[in-house]
Amino acid sequence: MVPHLVTALTGPINELEQRLLDATPVIERWFRLEWMEHTPPLYCAVDIRNAGFKLAPVDTNLYPDGWHNLSPDVLPLAVQAAQAAIEKICPEARNLLIVPENGKPSSFYLASLARLQEIFRMAGLNVRFGSIDPAVKRSTSITLPDGEKLTLEPAQRTRYRLGLKYFDPCTILLNNDLAAGAPGILEELHEQFLLPPLQAGWTVRRKSRHFQCYEDVSKRFGKLIGIDPWLINPLFTSCGELDLNEAGSAECLRGHVDALLTKVRRKYKEYGINEKPFVVVKADRGTHGMGIMTVRDVRDLEQLSRKPARGKASQMPSGEVIIQEGVLTNERIHDAMAEPVVYMIDRYVVGGFYRVHADRGVDENLNAPGARFVPLAFAGGAQLPKPGARGEARAPNRFYMYGVIARLAMVAASYELEATDPELQAIS
Amino acid sequence: MVPHLVTALTGPINELEQRLLDATPVIERWFRLEWMEHTPPLYCAVDIRNAGFKLAPVDTNLYPDGWHNLSPDVLPLAVQAAQAAIEKICPEARNLLIVPENGKPSSFYLASLARLQEIFRMAGLNVRFGSIDPAVKRSTSITLPDGEKLTLEPAQRTRYRLGLKYFDPCTILLNNDLAAGAPGILEELHEQFLLPPLQAGWTVRRKSRHFQCYEDVSKRFGKLIGIDPWLINPLFTSCGELDLNEAGSAECLRGHVDALLTKVRRKYKEYGINEKPFVVVKADRGTHGMGIMTVRDVRDLEQLSRKPARGKASQMPSGEVIIQEGVLTNERIHDAMAEPVVYMIDRYVVGGFYRVHADRGVDENLNAPGARFVPLAFAGGAQLPKPGARGEARAPNRFYMYGVIARLAMVAASYELEATDPELQAIS
Repeated sequence: MVPHLVTALTGPINELEQRLLDATPVIERWFRLEWMEHTPPLYCAVDIRNAGFKLAPVDTNLYPDGWHNLSPDVLPLAVQAAQAAIEKICPEARNLLIVPENGKPSSFYLASLARLQEIFRMAGLNVRFGSIDPAVKRSTSITLPDGEKLTLEPAQRTRYRLGLKYFDPCTILLNNDLAAGAPGILEELHEQFLLPPLQAGWTVRRKSRHFQCYEDVSKRFGKLIGIDPWLINPLFTSCGELDLNEAGSAECLRGHVDALLTKVRRKYKEYGINEKPFVVVKADRGTHGMGIMTVRDVRDLEQLSRKPARGKASQMPSGEVIIQEGVLTNERIHDAMAEPVVYMIDRYVVGGFYRVHADRGVDENLNAPGARFVPLAFAGGAQLPKPGARGEARAPNRFYMYGVIARLAMVAASYELEATDPELQAIS
Repeated sequence: MVPHLVTALTGPINELEQRLLDATPVIERWFRLEWMEHTPPLYCAVDIRNAGFKLAPVDTNLYPDGWHNLSPDVLPLAVQAAQAAIEKICPEARNLLIVPENGKPSSFYLASLARLQEIFRMAGLNVRFGSIDPAVKRSTSITLPDGEKLTLEPAQRTRYRLGLKYFDPCTILLNNDLAAGAPGILEELHEQFLLPPLQAGWTVRRKSRHFQCYEDVSKRFGKLIGIDPWLINPLFTSCGELDLNEAGSAECLRGHVDALLTKVRRKYKEYGINEKPFVVVKADRGTHGMGIMTVRDVRDLEQLSRKPARGKASQMPSGEVIIQEGVLTNERIHDAMAEPVVYMIDRYVVGGFYRVHADRGVDENLNAPGARFVPLAFAGGAQLPKPGARGEARAPNRFYMYGVIARLAMVAASYELEATDPELQAIS
């Protein structure tokens, strides 16, 4: 189930959308069966691009922030989902420890943490924040703009458990992507639930593995509802470590970009799409939207490697990269490019917002400085039945398709976490 | 967790309310543990009366209609809860059969059925209606005011299963209170889930048993959060079969009414409440709000038995009755008396509405002809944080306490259904 939120879409319902809407009971049952076999990550946010003819996830975040960007209306959904999650994980739980990101938190991040705390408090837990940043040495209270207080405390490790002074949690909720590696303080916590698990951190995780899993999911799902999986799956390829100073490396990148552009061009031709294909080159590990480059032509790369223009170099990712089919965004809010971000807790879609960028094009990354966030509200007001009046048939839930695609990405994430689970690997 | 809906209350938060709000994590954990031991009824609606100094359930409906009176905004909550329920009951389910009430359905009831169908459809099931009314002999399509179609079909019984032609459900959802007795067509269905179970029908169910269970629940809950259970529990007594033509029967009633009024008077004195106590005499089996009599003085009863005034007789319940402490309603919508009705699916509060009656007093039953229904909307708009602006602290969720009391009544219902479960009784 997906809440009916107002989308920026206004045009007629296209074929893909209609297919998804019609197949609702089949799709929901399919997810139900998937979650009998696989464990969803505790929470997850998925960036989606809607080109109209194609709808696909482009990024799956397993440590979502931005909770404050959701409409307060959807809070009950989030809480209900959090309750369902707790019941499965640790029903006797009283306490939850949230481990925030390291470094000085921005006011936005603090607002997001406060919202997370509220969600899990209302789900019936005492929630406190335990920082694993070595710089946090004592408890600090911060007053948020709305007058609420948030206290960051240094997490304390005993031999087997992580907690705070006089606060022993049953579950530890990581909201820290561990980009710098899994610290010792989080290792060997066999008595407590650490969620998401350590292998969800960016030291272990790779976008290419995620999208490989997503490709598998999209094939099965495509078969289920009778569509070409390409309509929901961004093609991708990767070429290992990249070093543009090395001729072989640059050559490899050019080759892969060219091949992928050709593949996409063929698909566009098959579907009669009159758009210019493009690919996105980005780091295979999460980088908070940094180092993402749009490539429309393989010659763009040649220019780049010959004489890196000032300011261009920072756009070029280094290290392991993934080359992904670019998906246009067809949605606009007040003429600015917009892409939906869908939030989930446990197996439930709990809300979303539009990431909006006024200075970016249809084929560019919107997760960049200058982005704004527009919460998606319930499509309620318009459809409230007027007593006595002859109501109109209710508008279809266009947010539904985003909820489906986001959950497909979440299924892929669960496969991914299983594939990298050290305990499961030890067994097999 | 309880969604934050707008209540009619505007005064300051009283002591009881504050106690419930402060104890949220403790309360939610308590419910979590209760649901580990007991099975909630699949759905449930509870009428609540709020006197300000006291807050109590007065009726618990295990076959709720009125789903169309909920705000469409809360639909996602209902669907999410329905999904959680299905996952537990029959995760592979494709089909759900809803058994509606017998008799010609009113347009209101049809609207309620359509909403129920929508909820379970969005939760991933094919939902159809199978009537067990012998008068329904063929499939009938009815067009609802909003243009949607609803088809009532005659339920078909095979040796072991109930279904429709070419429609074999895993679960059968009863929306029929079986007031006329459990029909053979629903008996011995051991291969399918029949929810709520047969003993939830009014042939077996008694309000006095429900409120006995509720008393137990309220005592434990009172201990948990440190309050006098009377603040949430309506006192009651019963005196078996009532026949007002019999002197002994009338005497018994008078005695019980007098004793209960004295008890309530003592409680009012203890708390310094300057209100006139009253009791409600009503049938111990469900009668859709019929035959409910408010008694403020035991002399009212003497008058009644001596010379039944015209039109008064129908107010007097006969057969088994329950005599319950009356709870004033302190809530008004546009000067009309109002009482909240809280809807639940599985263990989750999914919404509510106010039952409003312009012609009734603070101590009268509002479930009577002339009642109107005001959906409770999310308290969203007012609390949406304005970007950049210095937000105010969020208003407390006053609907929370209704959600707590309603769930206590649901816990009581689960005890009640266990106590009358023929299979559990066979074991013990």
